[in-house]
Amino acid sequence: MKNLIPVLDWGRRYKAEDLRADTIAGVVVVFITVPQVIAYAFLAGLPPETGLYAAILALLGYAAFGSSKTLAVGPTAILAMMTLEATSSFADPGTTEYAMFAMKLGFVTGMTLIVLRIINFGALINFLSHAVVTGFISAAAILIITNQFPAILGTGSSTDNSMFGIISFLLVSTNKINMVVVAISVSTIALLIYCRGYLESLLLKLGVKDQVASSLVKSAPMYAVVLGIAVTSVLELDIANNVPVVGNIPAHLPVLAWVPITLAEIQVLLPSALLIAMVVFMESTSVGSAMAAKKRQKIEPNQELVGLGMANIGASIAGGFPVAGSFARTVVNFSSGAHTPVASVITALLVIVTLVWFAPLFYYLPKGVLSAIIVISAWQLIDARVIRRIFAFNVTDAATFSCTFIAVLVLGVESGILVGIIISFVLLIRSSSRPDIIVVGRVGDTEHFRNVERFEVTTAPEVLALRVDQSVYFVNTRFIENFIISNVADSPEVKHVLLICTATNFIDTSGLEMLEHLCDNLNEVGVTLHLAEVKSAIMDKLNKTDFCDHMRGEIYFTTDIAMKDLAGV
Amino acid sequence: MKNLIPVLDWGRRYKAEDLRADTIAGVVVVFITVPQVIAYAFLAGLPPETGLYAAILALLGYAAFGSSKTLAVGPTAILAMMTLEATSSFADPGTTEYAMFAMKLGFVTGMTLIVLRIINFGALINFLSHAVVTGFISAAAILIITNQFPAILGTGSSTDNSMFGIISFLLVSTNKINMVVVAISVSTIALLIYCRGYLESLLLKLGVKDQVASSLVKSAPMYAVVLGIAVTSVLELDIANNVPVVGNIPAHLPVLAWVPITLAEIQVLLPSALLIAMVVFMESTSVGSAMAAKKRQKIEPNQELVGLGMANIGASIAGGFPVAGSFARTVVNFSSGAHTPVASVITALLVIVTLVWFAPLFYYLPKGVLSAIIVISAWQLIDARVIRRIFAFNVTDAATFSCTFIAVLVLGVESGILVGIIISFVLLIRSSSRPDIIVVGRVGDTEHFRNVERFEVTTAPEVLALRVDQSVYFVNTRFIENFIISNVADSPEVKHVLLICTATNFIDTSGLEMLEHLCDNLNEVGVTLHLAEVKSAIMDKLNKTDFCDHMRGEIYFTTDIAMKDLAGV
Repeated sequence: MKNLIPVLDWGRRYKAEDLRADTIAGVVVVFITVPQVIAYAFLAGLPPETGLYAAILALLGYAAFGSSKTLAVGPTAILAMMTLEATSSFADPGTTEYAMFAMKLGFVTGMTLIVLRIINFGALINFLSHAVVTGFISAAAILIITNQFPAILGTGSSTDNSMFGIISFLLVSTNKINMVVVAISVSTIALLIYCRGYLESLLLKLGVKDQVASSLVKSAPMYAVVLGIAVTSVLELDIANNVPVVGNIPAHLPVLAWVPITLAEIQVLLPSALLIAMVVFMESTSVGSAMAAKKRQKIEPNQELVGLGMANIGASIAGGFPVAGSFARTVVNFSSGAHTPVASVITALLVIVTLVWFAPLFYYLPKGVLSAIIVISAWQLIDARVIRRIFAFNVTDAATFSCTFIAVLVLGVESGILVGIIISFVLLIRSSSRPDIIVVGRVGDTEHFRNVERFEVTTAPEVLALRVDQSVYFVNTRFIENFIISNVADSPEVKHVLLICTATNFIDTSGLEMLEHLCDNLNEVGVTLHLAEVKSAIMDKLNKTDFCDHMRGEIYFTTDIAMKDLAGV
Repeated sequence: MKNLIPVLDWGRRYKAEDLRADTIAGVVVVFITVPQVIAYAFLAGLPPETGLYAAILALLGYAAFGSSKTLAVGPTAILAMMTLEATSSFADPGTTEYAMFAMKLGFVTGMTLIVLRIINFGALINFLSHAVVTGFISAAAILIITNQFPAILGTGSSTDNSMFGIISFLLVSTNKINMVVVAISVSTIALLIYCRGYLESLLLKLGVKDQVASSLVKSAPMYAVVLGIAVTSVLELDIANNVPVVGNIPAHLPVLAWVPITLAEIQVLLPSALLIAMVVFMESTSVGSAMAAKKRQKIEPNQELVGLGMANIGASIAGGFPVAGSFARTVVNFSSGAHTPVASVITALLVIVTLVWFAPLFYYLPKGVLSAIIVISAWQLIDARVIRRIFAFNVTDAATFSCTFIAVLVLGVESGILVGIIISFVLLIRSSSRPDIIVVGRVGDTEHFRNVERFEVTTAPEVLALRVDQSVYFVNTRFIENFIISNVADSPEVKHVLLICTATNFIDTSGLEMLEHLCDNLNEVGVTLHLAEVKSAIMDKLNKTDFCDHMRGEIYFTTDIAMKDLAGV
């Protein structure tokens, strides 16, 4: 029970000092949460209050069921973008039907996460390689930024949300640009960049404490919101200059209601929900485990599926849309000293307070300010250092990154991530199907055997000693067999083939059949196959078959013993 | 040029004694080829002559371009079944349109093989694991046998060729059973079983030479054909008892004509052609490489794509259907002493002779005899020993085998093989995503380090020495990271983590990022990460990045050095 609902575990040992720390963190986090979640609701094509609704129950749901102590869950930029793309294919943004579909999408996403836990298939997340994730997030960030241009320029919104749709919309809408909106958006962007780049060192110089300075900097979106509201309401820019504002936000709690979803709707939403669930899990566990490790704590991937599933179901019941652990808000929560998920409960309570008491104030919040906040958040998702590194380190990953990046830009986030997953596996199989097979010899008089091409080693002409740097399984059995047969065909003096299995981690039935055929075929031309340094786990399995009786050669404990026995050297 | 057209290479060194050997083999093989290819044309729902046409140009095409010296190419049971399934969805068997589609399918298959060669993607074949192939062939054999029941019972043919279609057809056609047909079919089956089981030992007892006895036994289908023709024509069973016979075969050479195919047809045939091309390549290379190895020769997988591609294009131009290396006929060719592809040329010439001179004789050949030949060939495709072994050796492969087997029976050969491929990869990823991570210690005073759970070893409490039995890449980075962080979280005394990389064959960007995060996160809790025995290929790549500067720990040459340095033991 404690495993299923972690709050029952840490809740018992909760102390007064924990509450003090959690309260401070909860208060700091709310200042960054409110502007972000309203902005992301806007990005997702939904009314501003849905962002707040989603955040409240997501925070509470995760606090009860999640395994990370400091993860701050709620709407994120990437998920808002994915929601926009998925939901747009069922209804037009801005309609009630659209909001219903977004809510249902969150529900199916939550259920998918829970089902993944039940069938014990959290390993699905492993389908996303670093190259795919980086390509996906970088391209999604560019899509998100492109998406904000109409609001930044005040041209009204485009009906087609693809990159080309928005660019062509902008090209025909140049006459609709509202310079007052441009002024608001650009000055907000400038303010946010300034805070991020210079405010902290200024505050530190003024003698403000490290911790406080950092929190003040991170709250920059809130200053932008307050300033935007103040300027717009005082100058009545919404009427005088036609500046689009957020408008009325209903000043009451979300109405909790079971999501009225049909089986047919679940079916059509499932493909999107599955991809979104993968992204939710990926975003959340990457930041969650990084924070946990810093305190020598751990997160439980299986429990995370439950926590995130409950957070999504909660967000959806409150009328929200898909949610995940937010990178920015989690880092703030952690660095503000949160001890337990009580910090998230406090953030949730303060979001409720904002909603009930301050909702009318948001009436005058210009949409351009929200777009500016989104652009700056999205921009931070692009990590040039990581991209440079992918290109420097691994050509396969560079290809995967590039294909995913282009596919997301051209085909959209869902198709793009799928293309990335498929390409990463095809390339993986392609490379695993051609393993390194190293001819080795003895290094001096030692017991060490190394690559004949890299080290000064001694070999025996009648023994071909090979180290296969890969497990022996179906994708590479043909390559290994061909390699050995070719080598034997080219070297008539060879009488023994010795396979050194230090790097062979498993052998499947294809591998076993291949080894047996190889034994037989080599025997017919007077060559014997031997193995050395086979791992115990593999030996256990081989002993269950008649392979060892069948093969005429030996299975040696070490390469050293084998070479002494076969070649006397 | 010699590489592209192997005949230019071996053709120069061709001697008189080669011709003698090839002629004998060519003659022996034709006796098994003629009945088989007529039977397989019948199985594919095509006129009997198409089997002979396909065989002639397939043999000649492969002889010129293939890399195996003894592969006998032509129609096979599995390909006939796949042709039936694929072509049935475009036209009704027996119509001219159907024959045209089968021909076009062969053409697209041939082009696919050539394209796979051009894009250098013969590795596609590696997608077929032993378990998938075994499940596929076993189930296909059962489908093929089921398919023959209407002809064996003389009920006329079913319009629906799926297993359930045929079973339900038989249930409603019990009144149409022709007992004369049943007698012919069953006695043919009995004859073939007798020849296979007892004839050889009888002949050997009578003093016939080994080699000759074996050839006489393998020619059993020809005896069945001759007997069937004799009995039917003498007793005029086709008229008197309504026994379905082969009927007229046009006694002339195939008319070679470019296949009139449209782009739209290529598009619809491509998915089937791709799967058929994989099966063609799989069937041909498995028997081809086994034969080559017995003579210390080798086959060139890339050249095989060209040879098989040309064979299929040839078969198609002659009006045939997809072809591959036949297991039975290749073994006979090899064991009859074929030296070079000239044996296949002689077989092809003799097939032409059969077609031009003996075609009228086949008029009286009962279709029941063909079905009996097909049933016996298909039955031999099921290898109970291999299936038992899959179940004994590897539970993952057993699951893959079972799913593929059932999917082929229920969904048909194409969908079945696809299901098998997908399942084998999902299971592979699932198992690779949870690699064995072994805590090791020193064995006695030696330099060897082994599993603490299997061996008596000494460890140092402050050093956690782990051997990761897998490459470190995207499918398992999260698992490895969680494993290490959990272990460190559970053991507060640990100050150093040592990763021993003997079994780590590559590290991708996901792995690199993980290691770097792990370094940082461990550092924050006062633990240092070290590596040992990193392979040179990986070190080369790591040195291209700033990873080594970034990590605070050491990269040790051996585990022994590392343990002495870190723990002094």
